[in-house]
Amino acid sequence: MQFRLLFHTLSILTIFLGVSMLLPLCVGFIYGENDVKAFSISLLLCLLFGAILYVITRNPKKEISHKEGFAIVTLGWITVAFWGGFPYLLSGSLHSFTDAYFESVSGFTTTGSTVITNIESMSHAILIWRSFTQWLGGMGIILLSIAILPLLGVGGMQLYKAEVPGPVKDKLRPRIGETAKLLWKVYLLLTFIEFILLRVGGMSFYDAICHSFTTMATGGFSTKNISIEAFHSNYIEGVVTVFMLLAGINFALHYQALVGNIKSMIKDNEFKFYIAAIAFAIVMIFINLLSVSGYSIGDAFRYSAFQAVSIMTTTGYSSTNFENWSGFGQCFLLVLMFIGGCAGSTAGGIKVLRVVILLKLGYRELYRLIHPRAVAHIKFNNAKVPSDVVDSIWGFVFLYMLFFVIAAAIMSFLGMDLISAVSSVAASIGNIGPGLGTVGPYDNFSAIPVIGKWVLIFCMILGRLEVYTLLILFIPEFWRK
Amino acid sequence: MQFRLLFHTLSILTIFLGVSMLLPLCVGFIYGENDVKAFSISLLLCLLFGAILYVITRNPKKEISHKEGFAIVTLGWITVAFWGGFPYLLSGSLHSFTDAYFESVSGFTTTGSTVITNIESMSHAILIWRSFTQWLGGMGIILLSIAILPLLGVGGMQLYKAEVPGPVKDKLRPRIGETAKLLWKVYLLLTFIEFILLRVGGMSFYDAICHSFTTMATGGFSTKNISIEAFHSNYIEGVVTVFMLLAGINFALHYQALVGNIKSMIKDNEFKFYIAAIAFAIVMIFINLLSVSGYSIGDAFRYSAFQAVSIMTTTGYSSTNFENWSGFGQCFLLVLMFIGGCAGSTAGGIKVLRVVILLKLGYRELYRLIHPRAVAHIKFNNAKVPSDVVDSIWGFVFLYMLFFVIAAAIMSFLGMDLISAVSSVAASIGNIGPGLGTVGPYDNFSAIPVIGKWVLIFCMILGRLEVYTLLILFIPEFWRK
Repeated sequence: MQFRLLFHTLSILTIFLGVSMLLPLCVGFIYGENDVKAFSISLLLCLLFGAILYVITRNPKKEISHKEGFAIVTLGWITVAFWGGFPYLLSGSLHSFTDAYFESVSGFTTTGSTVITNIESMSHAILIWRSFTQWLGGMGIILLSIAILPLLGVGGMQLYKAEVPGPVKDKLRPRIGETAKLLWKVYLLLTFIEFILLRVGGMSFYDAICHSFTTMATGGFSTKNISIEAFHSNYIEGVVTVFMLLAGINFALHYQALVGNIKSMIKDNEFKFYIAAIAFAIVMIFINLLSVSGYSIGDAFRYSAFQAVSIMTTTGYSSTNFENWSGFGQCFLLVLMFIGGCAGSTAGGIKVLRVVILLKLGYRELYRLIHPRAVAHIKFNNAKVPSDVVDSIWGFVFLYMLFFVIAAAIMSFLGMDLISAVSSVAASIGNIGPGLGTVGPYDNFSAIPVIGKWVLIFCMILGRLEVYTLLILFIPEFWRK
Repeated sequence: MQFRLLFHTLSILTIFLGVSMLLPLCVGFIYGENDVKAFSISLLLCLLFGAILYVITRNPKKEISHKEGFAIVTLGWITVAFWGGFPYLLSGSLHSFTDAYFESVSGFTTTGSTVITNIESMSHAILIWRSFTQWLGGMGIILLSIAILPLLGVGGMQLYKAEVPGPVKDKLRPRIGETAKLLWKVYLLLTFIEFILLRVGGMSFYDAICHSFTTMATGGFSTKNISIEAFHSNYIEGVVTVFMLLAGINFALHYQALVGNIKSMIKDNEFKFYIAAIAFAIVMIFINLLSVSGYSIGDAFRYSAFQAVSIMTTTGYSSTNFENWSGFGQCFLLVLMFIGGCAGSTAGGIKVLRVVILLKLGYRELYRLIHPRAVAHIKFNNAKVPSDVVDSIWGFVFLYMLFFVIAAAIMSFLGMDLISAVSSVAASIGNIGPGLGTVGPYDNFSAIPVIGKWVLIFCMILGRLEVYTLLILFIPEFWRK
């Protein structure tokens, strides 16, 4: 492990984060808010510590190996969230380090769980910072899942190597830079279009910025206590639904579509399954809402579409208190939490790509029993999926479920009821946000014991970093020469 | 598909089932019960239909191929359960075909879910028939999982080929016969020892027979409404706990141990993990009961040991109403439901063998990320696990979870709350019996809508036949020449 290179990269991230605090600082100035002080101090701390570390570790080796790749990604996220929590603490918005770190991790992992009990009592500076952390986190995810993880060989993203823009060299540095530029342009463009459309619908300038940040990041932080429901507008719900849906699609496909190659999106196996799964979920929940809850046809469609898309893309906005839905509605939302969006999007969860491969594998095993001697390959987008990629996907899903079960057991051991324990962990590891029971869309995570909050912090990072990237740091061999 | 051979085998099974009704018939005579009539008619129907079918299909081909193997196993279970449900219907103990078939499937799959609302109001003949169906089902399972499935190449049991007694030929018929004789002796012996020990503890002759039948089958039907709790005896709970534990171990290992080769049991990877997992579960639930429920140390140990063993071995007896336990206790029991007992035992669930392989695979994937070029094999009992066996295990677990999710969604669509829906399906597909919520240990399955009962019947058969064996019949290609 080249620690010099590792810490050098972390110092750059810290400085970058400090600079990004200029946004809430400006907002604070505009609204004449006291929290300007908290952001100034945080900004200076980031620049100071970042600069010192930068100088100490100057002139590191340029070559990034596998190991440094993993360490930089994981410690990068942990470090950025650490500094990002300072404004909450210094402004007095949150009163403990645990809460501040929880809120910050929830932001940078684009989860959207909150420990703030009354969101509307917060300053504009704090709320735009919350939203901005998700947007930055989303940017990080796109980079991670499309440019870095495929090269590190994590969990099936290798399958998209061909779709990824940028030079196809095996060295990390040049490829990451090129890819980042291209994809972030797409990300910026979509965010901007949503902002315009929300403004057209009558949302304030400030709210429109915050919500386009958190939609495109599939983060789900809102400036309102009851989330999107507060705007009482079918138009706004519609716009948000469409952009959540877009944010859940692989950004490499968005890029291809924008440069005219729309075929590569429409023909993509994962994209097709994603659209089909969401359509199926909407129809099923729609029928159930209609037959059980006594909603009108219009409302039943509106709620089912918004909530299915919000949960499956792991955004976590709510347009109604879905905790009051029938067992079926809740069961379906819980399943969608596990599936999540497409690989290469800002969404969390197991990812549609992996679910598709698993379904194909399940069918292949049945086929093999009938034809014991037949050689049956798994295909994805008409190409054979190598067996080590399949193994990697199985391993991912198993570890995901294993840690889900362990964490849920710990949460219930801390005294939570079964549904709250299970859904809080499912919502954290899947980077969704709200769960069911005591952590439903009208509730928050503030009452959870400190240990429980740290378990959920671990889950949010675990899910966001595609499981392997975090776990690998706990294997002693990883740190040996 | 050789239909002649298939139906010929089914006719033999039907005749055999008719003969086995002599037991409840005798019991009915001894107690002078009216249900003698119902059993006489059922017995005659079985013999009549069996004999007619036997004659029609006489002189079939002797050679059983893969396809016939699957069809005979699956349709055999379905047929036997069909005839086994007649006594419930004819005696008026249950009033609909659905209920009678549910109870019968629950018996022959050794699940132990019941639709009888007041068990103690049933005749001795009916109750011993219920218990006997489980014991026969257990016999079938041992044969299936040790002698048949490994040869058909289903779900990882191939790993035990070496441990299985009997001649090692690749043709099904001679091997099945030899293996059956040896293993059933072990099964009989253990049942008999438990019967003696229960008698020593003061249980009546009748109850001791019924409970040793359903313990060794890890079935869990009892003659009492509140199951083993009704006997108010630490000794009886202890004996039952030990024999449930034994019934959850691979019977091929029991056989090896009885012929003096105790090492092969102690050194077995699956056995070690099984014991460790149960010990861990007992300790965790014990600590939780002690700290939350205010039990004495003695009671906390007694309940945790009995309940952990009962659920993990998928027996489903209760010694207390564990529905009232904390979220943690329930969460832990739910996890144990999925793991289940050892492969080659009478237990259900995913099976410890598969969980062990999955854990090794998860670790290997992490290892591979550190050493991308290393070749890392999965080992089980010091032998390399072939990659097609690993694939088969992954496929099994995925299909198991997939159908669990689909069935739980349907149950909740029918109006069940989330916990009841999830646990009723987990308990059915894992062949456990009682679940949580409205299907807890003090409740029963009678109030579930008809469609829901058929979904659970499907789940019980699916779980019992190791998923593949049932699903393969739904692939059109299976039936083609």
